[in-house]
Amino acid sequence: MEYSFARKMSGVQPSAIREIMKSSSNKEMIQLSLGNPSPESFPMREIEGFIKEIMAENPVEALQYGVTEGYAPLREDFRVLARDRYGSMGDGDDLIVTAGAQQAIDIAAKLFLNDGDTVIAEGPSFVGALNAFKANGATIQQVELLRDGMDLDLLEQTIKNAKNPKIIYTIPTFNNPTGLTSSLETRRCILFLARKYDLIVVEDNPYGDLRYARLPIPTIKSMDTDGRVIYCGSMSKILAPGLRVGFMVANSGIIAKAAIIKQTNDVHTPVLNQMICHKFLNCCDLDAHVKMIREMYKQKSRIMLAALEKFSCTTLDWTTPDGGLFIWCTLKDGRDSVEFCKNAMTKKVAAVPGNTFYGDSCKQQSTFRLNYSGPDGESIVKGVKILCNIAKKEENDD
Amino acid sequence: MEYSFARKMSGVQPSAIREIMKSSSNKEMIQLSLGNPSPESFPMREIEGFIKEIMAENPVEALQYGVTEGYAPLREDFRVLARDRYGSMGDGDDLIVTAGAQQAIDIAAKLFLNDGDTVIAEGPSFVGALNAFKANGATIQQVELLRDGMDLDLLEQTIKNAKNPKIIYTIPTFNNPTGLTSSLETRRCILFLARKYDLIVVEDNPYGDLRYARLPIPTIKSMDTDGRVIYCGSMSKILAPGLRVGFMVANSGIIAKAAIIKQTNDVHTPVLNQMICHKFLNCCDLDAHVKMIREMYKQKSRIMLAALEKFSCTTLDWTTPDGGLFIWCTLKDGRDSVEFCKNAMTKKVAAVPGNTFYGDSCKQQSTFRLNYSGPDGESIVKGVKILCNIAKKEENDD
Repeated sequence: MEYSFARKMSGVQPSAIREIMKSSSNKEMIQLSLGNPSPESFPMREIEGFIKEIMAENPVEALQYGVTEGYAPLREDFRVLARDRYGSMGDGDDLIVTAGAQQAIDIAAKLFLNDGDTVIAEGPSFVGALNAFKANGATIQQVELLRDGMDLDLLEQTIKNAKNPKIIYTIPTFNNPTGLTSSLETRRCILFLARKYDLIVVEDNPYGDLRYARLPIPTIKSMDTDGRVIYCGSMSKILAPGLRVGFMVANSGIIAKAAIIKQTNDVHTPVLNQMICHKFLNCCDLDAHVKMIREMYKQKSRIMLAALEKFSCTTLDWTTPDGGLFIWCTLKDGRDSVEFCKNAMTKKVAAVPGNTFYGDSCKQQSTFRLNYSGPDGESIVKGVKILCNIAKKEENDD
Repeated sequence: MEYSFARKMSGVQPSAIREIMKSSSNKEMIQLSLGNPSPESFPMREIEGFIKEIMAENPVEALQYGVTEGYAPLREDFRVLARDRYGSMGDGDDLIVTAGAQQAIDIAAKLFLNDGDTVIAEGPSFVGALNAFKANGATIQQVELLRDGMDLDLLEQTIKNAKNPKIIYTIPTFNNPTGLTSSLETRRCILFLARKYDLIVVEDNPYGDLRYARLPIPTIKSMDTDGRVIYCGSMSKILAPGLRVGFMVANSGIIAKAAIIKQTNDVHTPVLNQMICHKFLNCCDLDAHVKMIREMYKQKSRIMLAALEKFSCTTLDWTTPDGGLFIWCTLKDGRDSVEFCKNAMTKKVAAVPGNTFYGDSCKQQSTFRLNYSGPDGESIVKGVKILCNIAKKEENDD
């Protein structure tokens, strides 16, 4: 038969990153393209021990259907974490356990978006979120990301000109893909504009713990006084992404509706996985564990920055993040980074072309994203050197 | 702020069953209301062993990000299962691993439904599916379920009169909540009508393995020649529901789009959970395991049927399923089963009122669903006796 897919499907494209990942079984490829945490950050022996305890103590609960809102002890852990660690749980707020921050974003999208509504996001931004908004019927408008966050004049203009603006989506701390952090002033202004134009703010904070320079900046959710901010958190970068556990904090009225949507999504997040997270948060020293990860990523980011400094010879610009997983590079000759990254793939280095991080991926970009958390130091240096060599060559040189 | 939820949210209600489940921590309550498999059906020691092996052999893969379409070895297991066991994988078909059959249904809904489209389902039907369709913008039309499946004349009439009919949703084998099975003739006619009116069929088969009487009937997917049927399978009833692993089989063009939607839902199903399923399907004798479950549920269903026979005294009608998890009862005096079930709750027996299984839950029903897989034999007899005593009393008697 000829399929008549839903209209909103037309704008949704497969993530270039995940397509690249599929070919990542090629062991020769230097992977600077993924967003994977370092496997060295996984507390593997601890997790093994937790599972053993769970299967000895409470195997039926681990394997039986669970409550949609989340395994009660983990939900309570997350409440404490959200309040005390992230300052992101106010008086009228509640919390639901999700399948990573991705599901929190998708649920927020489904809750609020009618076909044709506009979501305003940073440009560039996380493609998984952009696609979630599109798959829920939204049009994406992106606002240029400056060194300290979105261009605020442009943000207000964009809101004013948008058709049914509904949500501002932001990764204020260590944005994916740039690694840039929004200043306190920018955060305040985003919230101010959201109030002025009656918008929801979806604050995505998967990287917030991974700070290795400068001081923390309060979350936007911590300044939320009228239940306007939906906060998305994750265990993916501080425990293990394959477990798929995250959470959403929002006004309790929103969380009640989110639970209904989650029921229709996947009934609940796997109980075993939630129990592992609960054990981790109660039996391990989270601060010490996060400190270890920060040190590791600090070293890796310095290796990548030093390699860029050493090999780029004025062909590239790049960001210098205070944390997170990514560095964002710009080809100073302005050439198309899609061709550049394809060329790099033939030389066994994977990087993600900048157009991937825009709702309108057809527009040419001369930027690309590098990841330093996944690869080891030697691969980082080797990969950056190859990329810089390609950057030095004239377009269509080979 | 005043929240302006998406229009399609207005029709979505919390599942009464899951609300009841929240209060199920009350240990005194006899739970005939859930859809839980018996914990005795979980191969607990085997699962414990599998996890031990996984954490020894391949912990990084178990904990790292995975591929959206699914852990490759499990995907292949499911392909074989879908083809050889369920006859539900044709030449042009492909398969994606999902977070239970629930996510497969939700993805199918998102792929095909525009706001205001109609989904036609059995009446009564699985509330999680009905809510998934509604949350994706659909209007639900339900067609009365007779002893051998949907009333086919009514089905064609409903299709003809529906606004933008798009999907027929069916649980042809051991329907939830009735336990009834659609005949081969009904299945053929559903597919015939889907072709005639160019509709998609979503065939939900979580209970298919749990047959303890009569012979199997071919799946609708097995008769699909033009890629019109989306088949949803699950490990929840034959391994363990808390793992949240299922699959969708459909034409490869549909599966490619489904993978994009799944990326936006949850990135991928947890890898550890998929690895456990893979080990189970390769190291255990599935047939022997399923045979054990069938025997258990056959005994439990007989206990429930015998108790109904013994205690009901002509106040109730009920179905006699050939498998699955449920028996469907009708109060012969036609009274509202919501009041009946509330009354039962005060006497520590939980059952699900029939209106739960209709898109329009405001319409009064005199039916209710009983589950026999979860409780033990003694609880089944005790619970049924209490329910029958309530049924014998006049309305508003107490």
